[in-house]
Amino acid sequence: MRGVPRPHGVHALVRRTHEGRILEALRERGPLSRGQIARKVGLSRTTLSEITSSLLARGAIVVVDTDAAERRGSGRPAERLALDPRSGQFLGIDFGHRRVHISVADAAHEIVASGAHRYGDADWTERLKGAFGLLDRLGRETGVHFAALQGVGIGIPFSTPYGASPGEDPASDLRATFEDHFGTPVVIDNNTRLAALAEAIEMPGGAARDLVYVRLSDGVGGGLVVGGRLVSGANGVAGELGHVRAVPDGRRCRCGRRGCLETVASVPAIVAECRARGVAVTSLADLESATWLWHPVVDDVLRDAAGALGRVLAAVTLALNPARIVVGGELVRVAPVFLRHVVATLRRELFTTHDATSLVRGPSLGDDDGSLGAIAALYHQSLLIVGYQEPSTTAAVSRTRSFARMRPT
Amino acid sequence: MRGVPRPHGVHALVRRTHEGRILEALRERGPLSRGQIARKVGLSRTTLSEITSSLLARGAIVVVDTDAAERRGSGRPAERLALDPRSGQFLGIDFGHRRVHISVADAAHEIVASGAHRYGDADWTERLKGAFGLLDRLGRETGVHFAALQGVGIGIPFSTPYGASPGEDPASDLRATFEDHFGTPVVIDNNTRLAALAEAIEMPGGAARDLVYVRLSDGVGGGLVVGGRLVSGANGVAGELGHVRAVPDGRRCRCGRRGCLETVASVPAIVAECRARGVAVTSLADLESATWLWHPVVDDVLRDAAGALGRVLAAVTLALNPARIVVGGELVRVAPVFLRHVVATLRRELFTTHDATSLVRGPSLGDDDGSLGAIAALYHQSLLIVGYQEPSTTAAVSRTRSFARMRPT
Repeated sequence: MRGVPRPHGVHALVRRTHEGRILEALRERGPLSRGQIARKVGLSRTTLSEITSSLLARGAIVVVDTDAAERRGSGRPAERLALDPRSGQFLGIDFGHRRVHISVADAAHEIVASGAHRYGDADWTERLKGAFGLLDRLGRETGVHFAALQGVGIGIPFSTPYGASPGEDPASDLRATFEDHFGTPVVIDNNTRLAALAEAIEMPGGAARDLVYVRLSDGVGGGLVVGGRLVSGANGVAGELGHVRAVPDGRRCRCGRRGCLETVASVPAIVAECRARGVAVTSLADLESATWLWHPVVDDVLRDAAGALGRVLAAVTLALNPARIVVGGELVRVAPVFLRHVVATLRRELFTTHDATSLVRGPSLGDDDGSLGAIAALYHQSLLIVGYQEPSTTAAVSRTRSFARMRPT
Repeated sequence: MRGVPRPHGVHALVRRTHEGRILEALRERGPLSRGQIARKVGLSRTTLSEITSSLLARGAIVVVDTDAAERRGSGRPAERLALDPRSGQFLGIDFGHRRVHISVADAAHEIVASGAHRYGDADWTERLKGAFGLLDRLGRETGVHFAALQGVGIGIPFSTPYGASPGEDPASDLRATFEDHFGTPVVIDNNTRLAALAEAIEMPGGAARDLVYVRLSDGVGGGLVVGGRLVSGANGVAGELGHVRAVPDGRRCRCGRRGCLETVASVPAIVAECRARGVAVTSLADLESATWLWHPVVDDVLRDAAGALGRVLAAVTLALNPARIVVGGELVRVAPVFLRHVVATLRRELFTTHDATSLVRGPSLGDDDGSLGAIAALYHQSLLIVGYQEPSTTAAVSRTRSFARMRPT
């Protein structure tokens, strides 16, 4: 991917040095005079003036009023500067296998732009072109500019260090591309894990500190939030629920082993099993129709798959005691009854105190889950990057609650 | 348990108000003059003098030198006060089913006393008497006093809210007993989970941020450390690995369900299975002898049990990607070959990148694991109690490293 022509001219670069500290102060304190900013960030008035002029010219900050009202004594009232709510963006980009989804949050953490572009089975060059094209389009349509970009969160459809062909390292290449292009920090993680983070934050009734997310689609992926934080694991490969053995001596999995959960509970596996049992199902649409008609054989196949998933989720639940299990992905969208079969298995496999019925839910978010999770990860991470304390448990929960406002526009 | 006569006269009470703040300042800064302390904690010189006199009289703090060396100008040199290294204790008490184990760490987090008392199948009244008797004995033998106790960490052999008979709440009663007696914060957790925390901290080569611990003894218990923190779960019942279903339609478990891991991999289950297969094994010692003699039937039983455990651990490993799995308890002590059988199963069940061989280990700690974990939990918790930021991930790791010195004397 290196050596690929990188798109140009989309947005101005922002370097996170003095500028970053000034923007951070305004984010934290609200409107401030230049004198107040200078004292807060420890810059000379001259240096500060140069930087604020540049930020004003680029529209990252605006003059909101003067300090006349609170000013005592003589002297000319000083202008007060503030972040433009349309500035200070957090950019979340979710590269799926078939489309890229982008969400943009502003300085107030509201989602100000959101959209997707389908690229089919494209290579990374095409995926990148698609992403930058989509950014341009979102910019034109919403008037969002990226003058004060705080960082880029990127979801990728595999777990680093897995998923890449030998010699390839798409994650490093993506990082370099976006760091070079925007001059901001870049956070990269598996997009199923990022979806787990977004689902934990978005949980109706308040963010979940402990959540297990599983996605049933072309494959079976997972992500865990424990104590309010996304679990990456010792080698960055946590959440591989799809490769827990569900059937001893079962079908061969693409990972090379046999009987993985993915060989039973992914969409292709379920479609194949329906056909093996004599039902003419070849697509998601067929599966949806058959489910709506309560086709008895299809229902049996779904029960078996849900049983396998339920047993794996029971083990994880007994280990982690999560507040919520979210089962998402295309399968649940076309066959929501699947969730009830999962609950039935969990009722058998768990103590009654775990209350399987209220434990399991479908997703709260749609196709934007990965890009919203990327923004959430970025926001958590950026607190570290700018030298903040990592949020404590309590603070993490209350901070993430501000993301409860994160809704696609 | 309430209404039980509570032992008296063991140690003086310390209330964590002004005293606590003064001790905290000395812990943090080292020796300080009274003037420095007064400025640091915001007390008048008069109030401060009264409290330091009391602390000196009780031996919680000592006069170490004067500030003559660093003093400029005139005036009488001021005494500098410091914590008595034997003071500022952290007390860890592990109430097992058959014995209580106590460890005491001093202000420098060195273990200064450690011991156990067996009480057999005693009720909680007897267990408490045993614990206070042991505290008295440790005090006499080591000269440790509890004038500046920072807190009490307590391990109990069940997960709150489970394990108690209806109407009983040993955890609350224990908390009240020790809070009343010592006037300090009390932290209570399941002792297997606390052992997990201690094992994570004690891991040779440096603390593990992600560790799975399983204990095979009369039952099968577990504990997880994720991101440097002990996992309690949404209802405080995380770590129940013993009740993951390991055998469909297997033996009835004491929890009422069938085929739990505990019905296959606990010591009683393994002894029973040996007998069922015609081997005259009735005790741990028999099991140890048979294992040393490589008795083929006993080895088969161990392989089957290790297979069941390995499959459960594989699911947890794929979900969490831990740096280390510690398999502890009496079974591994008498039959260390069991670990190799677990590794063999994990090799089949995991990706090769997980490196099952280096993943699994026996315990680093002995019978003091629960009491050391209780001190570690207490120390982590006390940072919160006194209003500190909760340790960030990085800080938690470096702080816990200071516990690497925690060794029983």
